This record gives sequence, structure tokens and C-alpha cells, in this order.
Amino acid sequence: MVAFKRIPVRSLASGANLDVPVYTIRGSNPRAKRAYIQSSMHGSEVQGNAVIARLLELFAQTPPEGDVVLVPNANPFAINQKSGEYTLGRFDPTTGDNWNRNYWLAEITESSRPPWHKLKRKVWSAMSATLRARLQTDLPYGQKLALTLQALAVGADYVIDLHCANVSARHLYTPEYAEQEARYFQIPLLVSIPNMFSGALDESVSCPWWSFWEQLRTEAYPELPPSRELPQGFTLELGGQELISRDDAKRDAAGIINFLRRQGVASGRAIRPGPVHICALQDYKTIYSTHAGQVEITASLGAMAKRGTQLAQTLQFGRTASWQATIAQEQCIPILHHSSAVIHEGSELLKVFTRTRKI
Amino acid sequence: MVAFKRIPVRSLASGANLDVPVYTIRGSNPRAKRAYIQSSMHGSEVQGNAVIARLLELFAQTPPEGDVVLVPNANPFAINQKSGEYTLGRFDPTTGDNWNRNYWLAEITESSRPPWHKLKRKVWSAMSATLRARLQTDLPYGQKLALTLQALAVGADYVIDLHCANVSARHLYTPEYAEQEARYFQIPLLVSIPNMFSGALDESVSCPWWSFWEQLRTEAYPELPPSRELPQGFTLELGGQELISRDDAKRDAAGIINFLRRQGVASGRAIRPGPVHICALQDYKTIYSTHAGQVEITASLGAMAKRGTQLAQTLQFGRTASWQATIAQEQCIPILHHSSAVIHEGSELLKVFTRTRKI
Amino acid sequence: MVAFKRIPVRSLASGANLDVPVYTIRGSNPRAKRAYIQSSMHGSEVQGNAVIARLLELFAQTPPEGDVVLVPNANPFAINQKSGEYTLGRFDPTTGDNWNRNYWLAEITESSRPPWHKLKRKVWSAMSATLRARLQTDLPYGQKLALTLQALAVGADYVIDLHCANVSARHLYTPEYAEQEARYFQIPLLVSIPNMFSGALDESVSCPWWSFWEQLRTEAYPELPPSRELPQGFTLELGGQELISRDDAKRDAAGIINFLRRQGVASGRAIRPGPVHICALQDYKTIYSTHAGQVEITASLGAMAKRGTQLAQTLQFGRTASWQATIAQEQCIPILHHSSAVIHEGSELLKVFTRTRKI
Amino acid sequence: MVAFKRIPVRSLASGANLDVPVYTIRGSNPRAKRAYIQSSMHGSEVQGNAVIARLLELFAQTPPEGDVVLVPNANPFAINQKSGEYTLGRFDPTTGDNWNRNYWLAEITESSRPPWHKLKRKVWSAMSATLRARLQTDLPYGQKLALTLQALAVGADYVIDLHCANVSARHLYTPEYAEQEARYFQIPLLVSIPNMFSGALDESVSCPWWSFWEQLRTEAYPELPPSRELPQGFTLELGGQELISRDDAKRDAAGIINFLRRQGVASGRAIRPGPVHICALQDYKTIYSTHAGQVEITASLGAMAKRGTQLAQTLQFGRTASWQATIAQEQCIPILHHSSAVIHEGSELLKVFTRTRKI
Repeated sequence: MVAFKRIPVRSLASGANLDVPVYTIRGSNPRAKRAYIQSSMHGSEVQGNAVIARLLELFAQTPPEGDVVLVPNANPFAINQKSGEYTLGRFDPTTGDNWNRNYWLAEITESSRPPWHKLKRKVWSAMSATLRARLQTDLPYGQKLALTLQALAVGADYVIDLHCANVSARHLYTPEYAEQEARYFQIPLLVSIPNMFSGALDESVSCPWWSFWEQLRTEAYPELPPSRELPQGFTLELGGQELISRDDAKRDAAGIINFLRRQGVASGRAIRPGPVHICALQDYKTIYSTHAGQVEITASLGAMAKRGTQLAQTLQFGRTASWQATIAQEQCIPILHHSSAVIHEGSELLKVFTRTRKI
Repeated sequence: MVAFKRIPVRSLASGANLDVPVYTIRGSNPRAKRAYIQSSMHGSEVQGNAVIARLLELFAQTPPEGDVVLVPNANPFAINQKSGEYTLGRFDPTTGDNWNRNYWLAEITESSRPPWHKLKRKVWSAMSATLRARLQTDLPYGQKLALTLQALAVGADYVIDLHCANVSARHLYTPEYAEQEARYFQIPLLVSIPNMFSGALDESVSCPWWSFWEQLRTEAYPELPPSRELPQGFTLELGGQELISRDDAKRDAAGIINFLRRQGVASGRAIRPGPVHICALQDYKTIYSTHAGQVEITASLGAMAKRGTQLAQTLQFGRTASWQATIAQEQCIPILHHSSAVIHEGSELLKVFTRTRKI
Repeated sequence: MVAFKRIPVRSLASGANLDVPVYTIRGSNPRAKRAYIQSSMHGSEVQGNAVIARLLELFAQTPPEGDVVLVPNANPFAINQKSGEYTLGRFDPTTGDNWNRNYWLAEITESSRPPWHKLKRKVWSAMSATLRARLQTDLPYGQKLALTLQALAVGADYVIDLHCANVSARHLYTPEYAEQEARYFQIPLLVSIPNMFSGALDESVSCPWWSFWEQLRTEAYPELPPSRELPQGFTLELGGQELISRDDAKRDAAGIINFLRRQGVASGRAIRPGPVHICALQDYKTIYSTHAGQVEITASLGAMAKRGTQLAQTLQFGRTASWQATIAQEQCIPILHHSSAVIHEGSELLKVFTRTRKI
Repeated sequence: MVAFKRIPVRSLASGANLDVPVYTIRGSNPRAKRAYIQSSMHGSEVQGNAVIARLLELFAQTPPEGDVVLVPNANPFAINQKSGEYTLGRFDPTTGDNWNRNYWLAEITESSRPPWHKLKRKVWSAMSATLRARLQTDLPYGQKLALTLQALAVGADYVIDLHCANVSARHLYTPEYAEQEARYFQIPLLVSIPNMFSGALDESVSCPWWSFWEQLRTEAYPELPPSRELPQGFTLELGGQELISRDDAKRDAAGIINFLRRQGVASGRAIRPGPVHICALQDYKTIYSTHAGQVEITASLGAMAKRGTQLAQTLQFGRTASWQATIAQEQCIPILHHSSAVIHEGSELLKVFTRTRKI
């Protein structure tokens, strides 16, 4: 039912070899859509691993309709790098490169116009061929890893990248065209991203199809599906990094199953989602600290803060001790904050949703 | 009332100079005992800074009986070193040396035998002179900083070093001879340490006086005070590192004030402390992880766990995903755990009190 | 003669404030061109500091014709961050961002067409105004620092950014249009870069003027100067990082003086440069290590290596010890290599000039 | 001839397993003494790996008389940890513990007094048993690794630990009682260490035997060998870290072979060593930097510097640029210096031999 393999991705100076575990579950319905789910690309962002463990349990009980590929511990190099007890996960310790900026933006050049499901398969097949060819060349590790994972993800209609973020409320990134579908993950805070590529996995899935779909629309391609039928990439931010909770993983997995049911990948009936706050990517703002010192975040993550509310207070020692307030300049929903109470001037203090829509 | 100065401790490659803020509050009663309180020697252990800010507020309202010296941000170099958003605070990033292992163990050689309060002053005066002389020599930064702080602490009857520890329940280190007094801090988990020096500030205060007192006892020195009258060093562990809470600081400061009242340094009447769990240093045990993976701590910090209880579970990915249990081999109270859910084999997973006494 | 100031750029958690030293030397000829020279933006790349010290000596003896601004230790935060004895200089330890990717690409929108020297001044004035405005907003440190330095550089015809690179032969980056002038630095290995902006200081100087000049050319602007009269940005790579040599600094400074003489900024007559190897940016290739282990670079830096030559050998321990060769796939000039003999698969092993021109 | 195995030492969070390669070469003469040689315990100190590779070649050509065990890459965790391109090798990145301070000091309690070669075997057998037992308990990785290696080393008469040091001249550590023998390594700079244990491998070999030998002497044990017959531990510092040279490895290996010939472990006749400088451990002094800035070491490593000589000069930027001299306070031989030109006040600038003897 579950096929397991390990894909080698890097040999190390000590002679050890790092690999990535891959679980492939054959769906019961060959015509159902397929999903690819990976976790922990940033090393320290580990809750997704517990979620994948939970999904393996659930699919062992109730096999999915469509094929599902699960890749936990997707970046074995990043998860092994320590600095103190913390995991130096977000970027390559040698180059500083963010691990989630190395994916490849395919340009879909297919010119034949068969029915949609055949067209989709043709495009995937071309993408796979290109990725395989690139993987034959000498690449820096970050790129080799990303393309290896991307090659596993090609052919999936739904690519779900499980991350965590600093200290944070659960939220997710969805392409604009999939906002309505994204609600089924049962995470009420959505960042809606336009058709712009910055190297992340979710974008590497959505952007090529989005551009292609826009082109097909101008061609008046008769088989054009509604945009919600396009392959979609999502990034789910499952709370703070360096934390894992088996109980929370049950809830997180239930949300993903709900989404997969909605799409026909998992069997069973999806629950209708509740209301969500959506924030356009350009309105998802970073507040840089104007105070250096020790900071306490006083705002509640995930809750609306009115203009003028104190979001944080920073302790400084001068002639006396004083707490400097950071005030909301506009109504916002704080989503995440600096992982440490120790902060220098000009560091990322908070990220907040502004100008949210509720749907 | 409050005198403020900055003591320079290190110039940096950029040309910047780091200094330590020192607040000195003159007590209203010249015969009252004196206290020295510092915080954040390990950089990332910052809650003590909020506590000192709170103490400054309280002493501004109600001046102490005895002199009090307060030194927040005691290690400006450590607090400024970042690795990712975390603060690489526990040890010198250049040498690996734990910042709290550099203090000097005085040997008290005073041979005159005046009354106790004069003898004490003579000894302090000799200690000060030695420290001043050592500070004239070329020292590595860690040692220079430690001796600079130690020189500020000499002359205080109570030296309170405010730390934090990984992710942890509040607990404190007391010399055995001060166990009864230490209860007044209102922290119910105590590690009781013998007369052994490993380089920490609290030990550098307690050990010399302890040895000297033992010697005086053999001499049948007529003025010998009860051991609770000896100068005492304490290390308070105020919860997890990288966190600061102004509300918690009120409670933490109230406990310290209660202790200082008990000793006559602060004015007002101390509240009698509740029962505490005491664990001898040798029974404060580290559990090293025998599993590598992502770990969830399932034990409650600060609460008794019976033999056989699961303390933690570690996620591993093999042919299937599995959670490996770490089981309590004996009854214990978990005090702190690894700061990250990502753990290699042979890392410090938990520290636990075993064989506790309740007093 | 030399005006000195310190510009504050960041306050730290400890309360310390970091600043950047700025030396401004008024030229004797108000109509002469001006130069801006900074060093050590990457912290660990320090030889430029010694070069600026030397230039200060030389200009004290013989004042320049044109104004010269010198900014050593340009990134006080980066130079202070240690990891072991090494300086973690290349990127922000918190975010991983390369410090030399934060500059601003001005778009020159000036529509009036006065004579060239007036036009130039108008444009600079607009750039300054924009930079000042941006610096009023809350910025992450990396960007604040870059814009602060860029604001100091605006108004200079020659902006020279002194870097070092891993372990390397001296080489420099020049905009294509200034290749002939760049030879006067007396560094025989040149990377020639097109009009493309990736965030570096040199590009932030050259690109806007280059684009503007192309536009003016289409307009048949009668005052159009030859491209060598345009403001120019250069990045000089003065050997390996973590090294400083006062003797080498004399030679490095002499080369810069020679360039400045050629441009009329320094007094005296420039020496005609010898032949140089020029490599287009696209032909400056990275060789990623296909072997993990301990690597010895056997190629000579700065010298032509024929196709088939062994460039490096990597030690691995299997059933026996073996050395794996890395062979030149095409004729090339090795310019720099990995700073450590310890290398993982997929790390940057060497960077080499291919398809060089000699002029 | 050469038996090869891999000993597992740590599993990592990613699921990877690290192991240590062990080469065992059976000697041709069962009565000959035996040697154990390891390298790279500090990760970044890699030249010893090239030396072991060379020794494997040499022993393949000419088998040794006595058994030889060779363990390159002795600390696979340390060698894999990167910070920038550098290897964070010297200490555990999680705890700060120096990897070479975890060995076990055996106390020899054997009371029977058979002939020396039997007594030696009995003692080794007891040591082995104790080490095996300790390795059954849960240990922190650093200790598990050290005891695993120590267990491999027990039974060898000569234990040679190959290190490197910062930027340095080749030198070695010898127990006082083996000074004359140590000269045969053909490294002319010797640190002579007393019978004091600080946790290093060489001491863990020499100290127990040294103490035992002193005891046997008081007993007038009739079989007492000359001290040069005792098991001996040496630490060889083969130049700077992060560097590997196959040519230098030939010379380094030749020195080791010369020593092994002298002791009858390798076949062939040892060359008589030339004169060496010996420095007692207490006279091997560290000069801490009193200046912060960028430092150039002007002294030659390994060469005598007279009192008053400039050892280093440090660049600082104030109103003007200035170079601050560090002057030799006494005649000395500089042995190693800070790995980086970037230095803070109170960092280790240089280590120097003072009061050397020449033998």
C-alpha cells in the first residue's frame, strides 16, 4: 500500500550520506487527483513532520482515492545543523541562501491543444524531462535538493509544503485563484499571492499553470477548466518553529484531509469551512524594530489589533529602566513575531496582516 | 537615590565599546545587610532584566534598608551575538567557554579574629584588592568580565544571579547552608549545592565563606555566627531563555523582595514560604537522548512524574513513521528540557530532580 | 584637511550603538572629479581597511585634486559577529541576506537637458533627496546601512568598493563601459559586468547612468560625453578574507592612486597599465564540488590552467583512502576557492574565468 | 593486511547515522609494540587525515612490525558542522564543550606484580572492561565518542593524536618523561606536559601510567622499566586548521614513521633527530589582545623573537587611522595566532613559548 524509499541528496565531508524519505501511497481511484506533501524544508520547522506521521496513520486506515506522496524531513542537511540547542534551519549556513528560494520556474511551451487532462499530462511530462536533465548537471546542494523534490512533486494536482514560522499563529499562502479552495484547510488566516515567482515550491507549482491558463483563455481553448481545476501549490505555516505536538498534528492533519476530500484526493465528505481573513501579499507587512533591547510581544497573534494598540514593549537600560512601546500604525492582525526576546534595531519584530478581507 | 554608571568591559573590532549598566541604591539603614543582583550573564537569559527593571520601580517607591546594586545586561557581548533570530548566549562564540565558569575562588587567609562584622569587612577588603590587581593584567574577555562583576559583588551579603534555562520551570540553586533562607524566594524547586567550586558566581560567593566558617568552627572562634549569617550566593532560573514577560517579572521581583525582607535588606515583613522540593546537586540528573529525531516533551515541568511515566516521545521516519518513548527510570520532577524539538542522539533531553526532599 | 565624523547605524540589544567612520578630504581643485571609497562591507573582508589607512597617509602627504570620501569598517555589525575565531561576515547572521545586495537602483527620470556637468548634478541631487526620504522610513538594518552608505557615495564620479573573496587572487568587477579605465587599478584580472542590477553597490552606481546614457544617445543629446566620463562603480577583490597586510596595502593603494590619477582625482601622472585578462560575468563560472571530503586546491590562482589539468583533489576514506581529482573541463583561470579544506558535496569549490579576452 | 570497519557513533535528527572509519594493520612481529593514530577530532583540523592516508600507503608498501590502528575523521559530527565556509570544529556547537576534553582518566589499581609486559596487559585489559561498561550507559555524544576512541586506543604503547591549531607552526605535546623520544617526530617545537589531566587523549594515555610508574618505583618493583618504556600519548599540531596538503603530509608521515622506527613499531632505522626547543606547559603563554581592530601578525611563527620585538600590529580608526603595536614583553617563540585578522579586545592573539630549553 505504502511504498517507501530513500533518495540520496548529499554526501558530507565525514563520508556520511544524507537522504530524504519518500512514502508513496497508491490511490484506490486511478482517475482521482493526486497530492504531494512535504515538510521541514527549513530544518527547524518540524510540526509538518508530525502531520505527515499522522497522515500515514490515517491513510493506513482509509486509503486515499488519489495517489499521495509524502516527504517528511525534506532537508536532512538543514535539520542537522545546530547552533546552541537551536536548529539553524532557515538558510544554508555556508551561503546564507534561503532553502525555499531554489525551485525552478517552468515555462509551459506546449503548443498542442488536446483535452485538458491530456494537455496537463503532456506538460507534466515535459517538466519532468527538464528536471531530470538539470539534475544531471553539477548543482549547488540547495538547488539539487529543490529540484529533486520538485521532480517528485510534478504530476501532483495539489502540492502542499508544510512550514512553520518563528513564533506564529497558523496561516497559509494560497495562489489568488485558489482562495476559495484554500479555506478547506481550516486555517482561518490566508495570504493570497499573485502570479509572481520568488523561488518557493508553492509558486513553482502555481505560477506556470496560472500563466498558461491565462494564455489558453486568450486562445479561447474550448476545454479550458475553471481556475480551481488548475494544479495548485500551498504553503502551510503550522505555528512556531522548533516545536512539535502530536495532538496539534491531529488537528493539522484533519484540516489537510478536509482539503483533500474537497478535491477528491481523500475519500469522505469535506466539511464546509468557516470564515477566513485574507490578506494580499503586498499588504502582509513587516514591522522592523525601531528599538533595541529585550522585547515582549503584547499583541495576541491571530487577533485583530486596532490602530493605536500596543503591539510590543521593549526594555532598555539608561539612567533608568524604561519600556518602549511599539504601536499599531493601522488596524492589523499580528501573525508572527521575532523568535527571541533579544532584538537589535532594524530586525523583523512582527509581521501583520493589514487590509484583510473576510470571506 | 539611584546612582547610575556604565562600566566599560570590551572594545570590539568595529571600534565600538561595550559597557555594563550599574545601578546603586543607597539603603536607609547603614547597618543593614547589602545585596548585589545581576542578570543576563548568558545573554539569551533575559527575564532577569525585566525583574531588575521591576526592582528599580519598587525601590524608587520604597527605598531598601540596605544598599542594593543592580546590574542588568551583565554580558553585553553575549546578548549581541545572533545566530538566526536566536541569541547565541550560553557560551563564548569564539572559544566555547561557558560565561558562568570564569569567576575567581578566593581563599580567605585572614588570620586576625576581630568580631564577625569586622572580620567580614576585612576579608571583603582583601578580596577587593586582589580582584583589582588581577583586573590590571591582560585577561581574556570572559575572565575580565567575570572579575569586573565579581568586584562589584564583593561586599554584598546576598549575591543573586538571575538566569534562565532552556525551556524550564522556575528553580534556584542554593548553597546547602542557606536552604532554609532560599525558600523565601518563593520558588518551590531548589537545587542544593555542596561546597564545591566550578567557576560560577554563586559558588564564588558561598564557597570561600563556607570553608572559612568551617575553619573558624574548628578554632572555636567565639563570634562565630550561625551559617545563615554567612554571605550567600544564589542562582535563580527564571523560566525559559529568549523570553521576557513584564507580568511574570512582577511575581519574580516579589519573591526576591520577600527574600530581601527576610534578610533585612528590604523593608517590610517577609511572608513565610510554602513547602519546597529540594534536590541535592548530585541527584539533579541529565537524561541524554537515546533517540534522534523530533521530540515532544510530554512530561509537565515542575510536576512529579512516577517511575514508568513517558517523559518524551521522539518521531522517526523509517519504513513507517514511529514515535519512540523516553520513560522515567525512577520517580522524578522534570525541570528543564532541550530548547528545540530537533534532537540528535546523545544531546541533553531533560534535566530532572530525583530523590527530592520536601521541606 | 580631513574632516572626520561617525554616522550611527544601529543600536544593539545591549544598548551599544554602532557607527561608521567617515573621512572626507577636500580636494584642491573644485572642478576635479570626486571619489568615494569604502571597505569591509562584508565584515571579514578586511584588507580594504588597511588600504584606506594607507590612502589617508598618502593624501595627508599629497592632497587630492578632487574630493575623496573614505569609509573603512563600513559594516560594524558584520565585523563584530564571530563564529569560532572566524568572522561570520558575508551575510546577516539573522536573515542570511548578503550584505551587498541591499542597495537601491535609481531610475533617472530627469527630463531637462542642460550641459552634461549640470545634468549630472541635477540627477545626483534627485538621488540624494530620494535616499534621504527612504532613510526616514523604518528599514531593516541591512537596507538602512546600504542606503546610508549609498547616500554618502552619491555625487562621486568613482565609487570603489573594497572587498576580499574566500581564498583568492586579486581581481575586480568593472562595468563593461569602463573596462579600459579599470585597467589602471593595476589588477590584471577583470570581470566585466553588463547593465544588470543585483543589489550591489558598484551596480547601483553604474546601472542608472548607463541606462540614462543609452537613452540620451537615442535622443541625440548634443552634450553626450563618452561613456568613460560616466560615473562608475567598481568592486575590487583584494585577496583572501580574514587577512590583512600592511605591505600589500601599499601596493593596493598605489593601484587605486594610479586609477585616481588617470581620472584627475589624484594629482600626478598615471602609469600606463599592462595587459589584463577580462572575463564576461556570464563566463565567470562556479565549479561545485562533486566530491565530499577534505580538499586540496592544486591549481594556482590567477594562472591559466589548460583543459584536463587537475584543479583540486579530495580525500575520502572508504575501504582505502583515496584522492578524487577535479579536472578542468575547459581552459580557465582559477580565481578563488572554498575557504576551508572541509567540503560537502554541492558546495562552491572554485570560481574560474573561462573564455577570457586579453587587452 | 588492512582490516577496515566503520564504528557507528551518532544518529542524527534527519535519521542519518555517523560512523568512524577504523583501519587495523596487523604487524609482522607479534612482540613488537603497537601504535594508535587518530586525526581530526576537532573537525576542522584536517591535515592529519592526509597524513593517515599517507601512512596507509607506506604500510601497504612496507608492513609495520607492530600492530597499528589508524582512525581518520575521528569526529564525523564536528567535521560536518559549517558556519559560512568554515568548519565550526573546535567545540560542540550545542554545548560549547571542547571535543578533546572528554576522555577518561583511568586509575590503575592492579595489585598483582607479574613481569612488566604481563602487568601492562593486565592493566589494559581492566581499562578495556571499564570503558566497555561505561559505553553501555547513556552518555552525551562528546563523551561517547571520546570513550569509543579511547577504547580503540587502549593496548597501544604509542597513541598519537593528530591535530592542527589556528594558524601555527608545527609543534607537539609530549609528556615530560618522553621528551627524548618525542624528538624523533622531527618537529622541533615541543611542549612538555606534567602529570596533570585536563581531559585530552594524550593525557588519558600518559597520566595513568605515569602515576602507576611512580607508585611502582616506591615499591621497588624489580621489573620497573625505564620511563621511556611506558605507554605514551602525544598530540601533534600539524600546522594551521582548514588546510590540507598532500606534499606536507609526506613530510609529516615521514616524521611519524621515524618515531615508530625508533620504537620498533615500524621497520627500518630511525634517523637521529636534530635539536629541538622545549617549553614547559606553564611557560607556554597566551597573549590576549589589548587592542580591538584588524590585526596583522608581524612575528614569524616558530622563530625566536627578542624582548621588545613587535609581534603584531592592530589597525584602528579614530580621528585618524592608526596601527597599535603588540610588543614582546620577554624573549619568546610565537607558535600560533588568531585565525582571523578581525579581533576583539581580550581574544587570544598569540601563543608563545617562553623560557625554552634546547636539547
